[in-house]
Amino acid sequence: MSEIRLSSEKRLRLFAGRGFPELADEVASELGIPLTPTSAYDFANGEIFVRFEESVRGCDAFVIQSHTTPVNKQIMEQLIMVDALKRASAKRITVVAPFYGYARQDKKSRGREPITARLMADLFKTAGADRLMCVDLHTSQIQGFFDGPVDHLFALPMLANYVGSKVDRTRLTIVSPDSGRVRVAERWSDLLGGCPIAFIHKTRDPRIPNESTTGRVVGDVQGQTCVVIDDMIDTAGTITKAVEALFDAGAADVIIAATHAVFSGPAVERLRSSRASEVVVTNTLPISEDQKFDGLTVLSIAPLLARAIREVFEDGSVTSLFDGHS
Amino acid sequence: MSEIRLSSEKRLRLFAGRGFPELADEVASELGIPLTPTSAYDFANGEIFVRFEESVRGCDAFVIQSHTTPVNKQIMEQLIMVDALKRASAKRITVVAPFYGYARQDKKSRGREPITARLMADLFKTAGADRLMCVDLHTSQIQGFFDGPVDHLFALPMLANYVGSKVDRTRLTIVSPDSGRVRVAERWSDLLGGCPIAFIHKTRDPRIPNESTTGRVVGDVQGQTCVVIDDMIDTAGTITKAVEALFDAGAADVIIAATHAVFSGPAVERLRSSRASEVVVTNTLPISEDQKFDGLTVLSIAPLLARAIREVFEDGSVTSLFDGHS
Amino acid sequence: MSEIRLSSEKRLRLFAGRGFPELADEVASELGIPLTPTSAYDFANGEIFVRFEESVRGCDAFVIQSHTTPVNKQIMEQLIMVDALKRASAKRITVVAPFYGYARQDKKSRGREPITARLMADLFKTAGADRLMCVDLHTSQIQGFFDGPVDHLFALPMLANYVGSKVDRTRLTIVSPDSGRVRVAERWSDLLGGCPIAFIHKTRDPRIPNESTTGRVVGDVQGQTCVVIDDMIDTAGTITKAVEALFDAGAADVIIAATHAVFSGPAVERLRSSRASEVVVTNTLPISEDQKFDGLTVLSIAPLLARAIREVFEDGSVTSLFDGHS
Amino acid sequence: MSEIRLSSEKRLRLFAGRGFPELADEVASELGIPLTPTSAYDFANGEIFVRFEESVRGCDAFVIQSHTTPVNKQIMEQLIMVDALKRASAKRITVVAPFYGYARQDKKSRGREPITARLMADLFKTAGADRLMCVDLHTSQIQGFFDGPVDHLFALPMLANYVGSKVDRTRLTIVSPDSGRVRVAERWSDLLGGCPIAFIHKTRDPRIPNESTTGRVVGDVQGQTCVVIDDMIDTAGTITKAVEALFDAGAADVIIAATHAVFSGPAVERLRSSRASEVVVTNTLPISEDQKFDGLTVLSIAPLLARAIREVFEDGSVTSLFDGHS
Amino acid sequence: MSEIRLSSEKRLRLFAGRGFPELADEVASELGIPLTPTSAYDFANGEIFVRFEESVRGCDAFVIQSHTTPVNKQIMEQLIMVDALKRASAKRITVVAPFYGYARQDKKSRGREPITARLMADLFKTAGADRLMCVDLHTSQIQGFFDGPVDHLFALPMLANYVGSKVDRTRLTIVSPDSGRVRVAERWSDLLGGCPIAFIHKTRDPRIPNESTTGRVVGDVQGQTCVVIDDMIDTAGTITKAVEALFDAGAADVIIAATHAVFSGPAVERLRSSRASEVVVTNTLPISEDQKFDGLTVLSIAPLLARAIREVFEDGSVTSLFDGHS
Amino acid sequence: MSEIRLSSEKRLRLFAGRGFPELADEVASELGIPLTPTSAYDFANGEIFVRFEESVRGCDAFVIQSHTTPVNKQIMEQLIMVDALKRASAKRITVVAPFYGYARQDKKSRGREPITARLMADLFKTAGADRLMCVDLHTSQIQGFFDGPVDHLFALPMLANYVGSKVDRTRLTIVSPDSGRVRVAERWSDLLGGCPIAFIHKTRDPRIPNESTTGRVVGDVQGQTCVVIDDMIDTAGTITKAVEALFDAGAADVIIAATHAVFSGPAVERLRSSRASEVVVTNTLPISEDQKFDGLTVLSIAPLLARAIREVFEDGSVTSLFDGHS
Repeated sequence: MSEIRLSSEKRLRLFAGRGFPELADEVASELGIPLTPTSAYDFANGEIFVRFEESVRGCDAFVIQSHTTPVNKQIMEQLIMVDALKRASAKRITVVAPFYGYARQDKKSRGREPITARLMADLFKTAGADRLMCVDLHTSQIQGFFDGPVDHLFALPMLANYVGSKVDRTRLTIVSPDSGRVRVAERWSDLLGGCPIAFIHKTRDPRIPNESTTGRVVGDVQGQTCVVIDDMIDTAGTITKAVEALFDAGAADVIIAATHAVFSGPAVERLRSSRASEVVVTNTLPISEDQKFDGLTVLSIAPLLARAIREVFEDGSVTSLFDGHS
Repeated sequence: MSEIRLSSEKRLRLFAGRGFPELADEVASELGIPLTPTSAYDFANGEIFVRFEESVRGCDAFVIQSHTTPVNKQIMEQLIMVDALKRASAKRITVVAPFYGYARQDKKSRGREPITARLMADLFKTAGADRLMCVDLHTSQIQGFFDGPVDHLFALPMLANYVGSKVDRTRLTIVSPDSGRVRVAERWSDLLGGCPIAFIHKTRDPRIPNESTTGRVVGDVQGQTCVVIDDMIDTAGTITKAVEALFDAGAADVIIAATHAVFSGPAVERLRSSRASEVVVTNTLPISEDQKFDGLTVLSIAPLLARAIREVFEDGSVTSLFDGHS
Repeated sequence: MSEIRLSSEKRLRLFAGRGFPELADEVASELGIPLTPTSAYDFANGEIFVRFEESVRGCDAFVIQSHTTPVNKQIMEQLIMVDALKRASAKRITVVAPFYGYARQDKKSRGREPITARLMADLFKTAGADRLMCVDLHTSQIQGFFDGPVDHLFALPMLANYVGSKVDRTRLTIVSPDSGRVRVAERWSDLLGGCPIAFIHKTRDPRIPNESTTGRVVGDVQGQTCVVIDDMIDTAGTITKAVEALFDAGAADVIIAATHAVFSGPAVERLRSSRASEVVVTNTLPISEDQKFDGLTVLSIAPLLARAIREVFEDGSVTSLFDGHS
Repeated sequence: MSEIRLSSEKRLRLFAGRGFPELADEVASELGIPLTPTSAYDFANGEIFVRFEESVRGCDAFVIQSHTTPVNKQIMEQLIMVDALKRASAKRITVVAPFYGYARQDKKSRGREPITARLMADLFKTAGADRLMCVDLHTSQIQGFFDGPVDHLFALPMLANYVGSKVDRTRLTIVSPDSGRVRVAERWSDLLGGCPIAFIHKTRDPRIPNESTTGRVVGDVQGQTCVVIDDMIDTAGTITKAVEALFDAGAADVIIAATHAVFSGPAVERLRSSRASEVVVTNTLPISEDQKFDGLTVLSIAPLLARAIREVFEDGSVTSLFDGHS
Repeated sequence: MSEIRLSSEKRLRLFAGRGFPELADEVASELGIPLTPTSAYDFANGEIFVRFEESVRGCDAFVIQSHTTPVNKQIMEQLIMVDALKRASAKRITVVAPFYGYARQDKKSRGREPITARLMADLFKTAGADRLMCVDLHTSQIQGFFDGPVDHLFALPMLANYVGSKVDRTRLTIVSPDSGRVRVAERWSDLLGGCPIAFIHKTRDPRIPNESTTGRVVGDVQGQTCVVIDDMIDTAGTITKAVEALFDAGAADVIIAATHAVFSGPAVERLRSSRASEVVVTNTLPISEDQKFDGLTVLSIAPLLARAIREVFEDGSVTSLFDGHS
Repeated sequence: MSEIRLSSEKRLRLFAGRGFPELADEVASELGIPLTPTSAYDFANGEIFVRFEESVRGCDAFVIQSHTTPVNKQIMEQLIMVDALKRASAKRITVVAPFYGYARQDKKSRGREPITARLMADLFKTAGADRLMCVDLHTSQIQGFFDGPVDHLFALPMLANYVGSKVDRTRLTIVSPDSGRVRVAERWSDLLGGCPIAFIHKTRDPRIPNESTTGRVVGDVQGQTCVVIDDMIDTAGTITKAVEALFDAGAADVIIAATHAVFSGPAVERLRSSRASEVVVTNTLPISEDQKFDGLTVLSIAPLLARAIREVFEDGSVTSLFDGHS
């Protein structure tokens, strides 16, 4: 017989960029294996170097990186890790980006703009990624930007469960902070028994040029506990203005809930000084100690990521794990 | 000198599939050239044959096809035309799909679904398309599904102008028929001076399993002229229920406006028997004589397409032509 | 150790489009597994929706679809199924198209024509197909249109065995109905002990413009039992004219044998009223009850498909299964 | 204005590999420009080096190479020339291969064979070829192996005109030397007024294992002037056996006509000693002085190539130039 | 006639990232056109947004970006600009990276490393770049990492001319600071009349583990004016150690010359305090005011870039412009 | 359950081209399996035909070919073998090219040259190669030319061990025959305890045009045993001139060591008549009996190849096997 035969084995390995090692450690701990030891450092001019310290041949590689600030560096590091895995004969490479950078640039709003969310998907493909895993994409269409399987996980049920357990559901209204998230508000409402929804309609006063917009609450919020929801909190401007508008419109209480705590620039200050009674987020992105404040609740995304990674590795059903698919 | 030199020339040619030849003729007429003569017929088993009757070498080809019923045949015919153009040395091929088929399958709502809107973009690319031109895509993210330039034209300003000229703007409310189109309603509002917006919140009664949803109007429509907007009218179920809900909520008058008149199954009957005073659409898709009814207004998209094609050919700015980019 | 290890398993799954579910069922039955449950329906405007009802992660997927009328819809459904499988992490996807649609458009007969058979191969590749399996391709070169493995199965030996068992081989002549199938006739002859072959030479009378062609029998058929062979019977025009020409030339009996029963338009009527004593085909394409007639024999292709699928799955040799490779 | 503008110019350049420089010179002469000066030599171990001696930026490059012996070297040289042109910014690159090497390996005759004709098309694409130009491909389906435009030129009308002018057409029969070329024989017949056709049926005697085949003439050739046609003459075994069989069957005279004079091994000796009165070929491949013999007529393909190149460059119609497309 | 005809025009446009706008301005000024106005800014979380303020359809775009610190951001910005140009229908896109980031990671020194220089080339290709233009690549093989034309410009002759005009050539030795640049030293020698060359051989003392290496001068430098050359100066550790070793070996004077002034970390301090009499570099990368010091000479690369861009645009010969190609 | 399950198995198969079957046999023998039986022959015009005689479905295929003379044929045969394996459903295909043909054309030395080493990598990829395995590439950057894993093995430690065991290391100098291999000389020095290095500086006398270069020894070789190293010996001109220069400069003894014995043209004669005491090479390329001479030592590369193939197949670490990675 002109063959050597060997029974085939699958081997899961976990790799982490330097964006948010604590989350990667937590996922590894949930899975019960250590991260594969990796050397990664910056050259003096900022170029990144990466090398894996154990053989990765034939492994099923999951590369976790949080696209936190500085976001371009985190993405580039993940691309370079994927390239190194490809050239070292990893069998399958899954990019795990709990927060998908550049998700908001998912269309041309005007001519001569990039569609950077698509570009990112193509860059990962080019580097060698076979699959993507993400949490609560800014728009679900981003799944279609990648030419391959995307595991789109949902933190929304976890957030909704948490919020639903703390409020009087009979006096609950879900509020989208602008016209673009009303569909997401409806999904919250579905998960919480069909409570009413509302949104903030931003209008420009046509008589005053360059005047900033004002927000009009559409829907009835008088005396209600309002949960303002969003996929991410970046500078927190829109969402804290929404809180103000809701109290002005007679809301009894306001809670903020979002998956991705980007928390850029004035975000923490705005949230801390807002009248919202609680701000609920997950740890898809790192939150430093000095970004934490009273009323901030951080739910861990690590168990969800770990279960999804295990199911993907074992060819189980990820679909069965998660309700509330969008 | 080891060269033959020749001054270079660009040549625009227009090609039409058999989906909606009248629209193609109208575009050709706006541009002042005839369609390139094309033989197209079906073999007995339904296979399509296409052949162009004039040389197309080096031309800048625009291939117009409306993705009307039977939609798979129309798309396949356009793919085959693109293949024939590629193999006949056309210099550049632009797929003009005023209505982009399968646009609604732009994400996986649950696991194990296709993302057919992305698949279509890839099929056109594979066949040889360099560029796409479409009108009012179901979601703007579809631009990012194509790996190349997409000219995303907007019929919305034309529709808004028409409606705006016929109603009392001080009593106008723009209504999204569900939670997914509120952003589009806001764009209408911006174009019409900042009028209020509302939407229909569909809820399931959690006590009654498998019960169909009911629609709750969110926003104030009492005594208003409501314009229910959408990108397309397929079976007209959602939109005509919205009309009923609005009258129930006290609306004074309701107008329906949408870009794409898919008009499937019971659509025409539902629209005809609804209480909406007018239904305004464009001719991105053919509307047969027996689909026409009193109160239906059809605006022609041909001038917009023709201007865009000319600008693309002449390397002018398409951006400058159109307001209201999404 | 930084790994989770798991022994690797291959899992075969069978999927069927809606083109000819009975054949898929028969193949499944031969293999001893049910088809994977699949939701598939048409939207009101004809757009196809597909969803698999069980997890398909990591499976070795075989997607059976007969490219029957309406052929563009069947092909598009298969493309969409492949896309859904790819995005759901199937490990390997084999497109099983017993009859390969558009096989006849395998070259440019004149300028500015498409090569649709190549286009189809590229579309399947783009959608995510890793492999193709087909029966008796119109020309063997179509194998080369696909960038990957093609299992080209042969129904010809099955047909030849059947015919050979019913006729007096010493008085047998194999006849190609035109000049393009003489090579196939020769293969029949090889399988049936080297019997003589003949063909019909179509000539245009150059003196009468636009006159239809007449067929001249080349080869001696006097007193012979003639088997007119072809890969497919579409409208049956050519093949029934061949039958006439053979009787005119003194044939004692004529049998028609072909793999693919396309049976378009007047085909059944022509065959029924022809003087051929028997018409032998396979069920690569569905034959409705009202298309059946006395003298029609349908051999099932399902056992061949099932054996090939099993060999492919088990990495056995498909070559060893089939004689008469072309 | 933020632009520098320049009127655009097309520049045709002709390049030649070392396979058959005389043909390239003849084409250049027809076009009225010299070949672009090129350094090409072999390193001591046979590696090929190529460099162009004039700037080729932006030119419309036509790279002529005859795939003559040693065929792998000729093909590799052409690939390397294409790579050099691509990297030197040629605008468009057309591979001109009058005889397309490996055309006969256009399908898998049995399992585990390559489809080298497809591989060649892919290699040229990979190297950077935008287009192919060939003469009388072994099978027309090879056009579909290349992902781009293929100009498939026909020497057949030229050969048929020549032969037609020398024989008594009323006593003419066109003969295919085997079952695979009957379709080509029919095309000859069409061009020469519908004369009869015949072919040689090779049969194996099933009683004698490993016995070589014998040829049976199918069709009536008694007293006829037979023209045995083929696309190429390689070792001339099949075609000279056909000549014998025809004379044995009573033919009055036999002429051999083929496009490509591969003339390998014993070809010239066989042709010289055969009873055919004339052998007509073209110069798509070089014929050395010692390969020439009485009765050999070589028609030049250069004018056809030159006209096609000019039409392609000028975006004229190649289709209009040539009759008898297959 | 079914065409609109227009004479074709080429239009050069220059675009600049925010890495080193002064160099881009200088190039624009050499070319006599302004940079195309571009909006570029960072979102609060570091995501980059880019939009061009004039139509770019059909233009020949040159996108200049210096890959300076923070290098990942500069590269990402250039990728995003290319994506935006591609989607806005630029006709051809040339990435101008005077210093090519990650050039040093051009091979795997050990297993499980990336080849980031190749990855960068692929990322640019994926984003939509048709061509690259770079100056003095770390290794010439990087040209081969890009699948398309690369204009590899040489600053070396400019540097050599400058140095050659200031020293006594009869007492000149060119020195490579390590074993990897000896070939470059030889090229300097060729340009300066064949003067001697030397290099520093780094050896590890095998008796002392983990001991840092020491440099041994190979070649005769006694009493010579030594020019230590390199393609880039990053932290200046190697090169300033080389200066010391040369003076220790009896050199009369030492000059440092390099193309790319990366000047990371302690570089400026090391150079300032070294005994080299002059440090000559170009401005492919920005040098801030506080990085300048006595003895530093900066030659401008802008004229070279501008000439190359113009030649590329006009299809002139870039080769003819530059001596000393590697 | 809608699945057939089967435990998965890996199967290694070894294939050999006709370039150097003895080396392939030796590798097979080391691995303990025979080569997979393969039919390979040349058609009369030099076209290659290949067919495998056993099923290769699902196997892990290693295809060994030495790129010896005639190099284009050897490469083409390997490409065709890869195509046949791809089409026959091999699971993974590794091209084993102990000597990588065209490695020296790894950059454009001047404009309008090809980068054939990159082209070769692309051709192998296009044919279907998943991985490459090579020994001592001319430059390590060639790894980056292939879009996938490259196992770059090193014969250098084997050569250095051999040489080191035969000489007095205290009197050893490693010599690069030109300025381009000094880095390799340094690697030898590292492996042999840090001995001194030297190189030959070729200079042109600028006063005598077109004068051939002369070599100047840089570094001290007086009384030393010099080992002149290179990756390959082609015509042996450079290396034998280096030997002369070293003796002229006072060397006590000279040994030549190189990995690849290309031995073209006058190589053997030059080596035989040179004053070098020994020439050490490996058998990556065949050395015929009449190329052997006194003083030639050939070390076998087969054990290294076999160990690497086994590690790749078993997903072991190739890195751990080999020291001296470059």
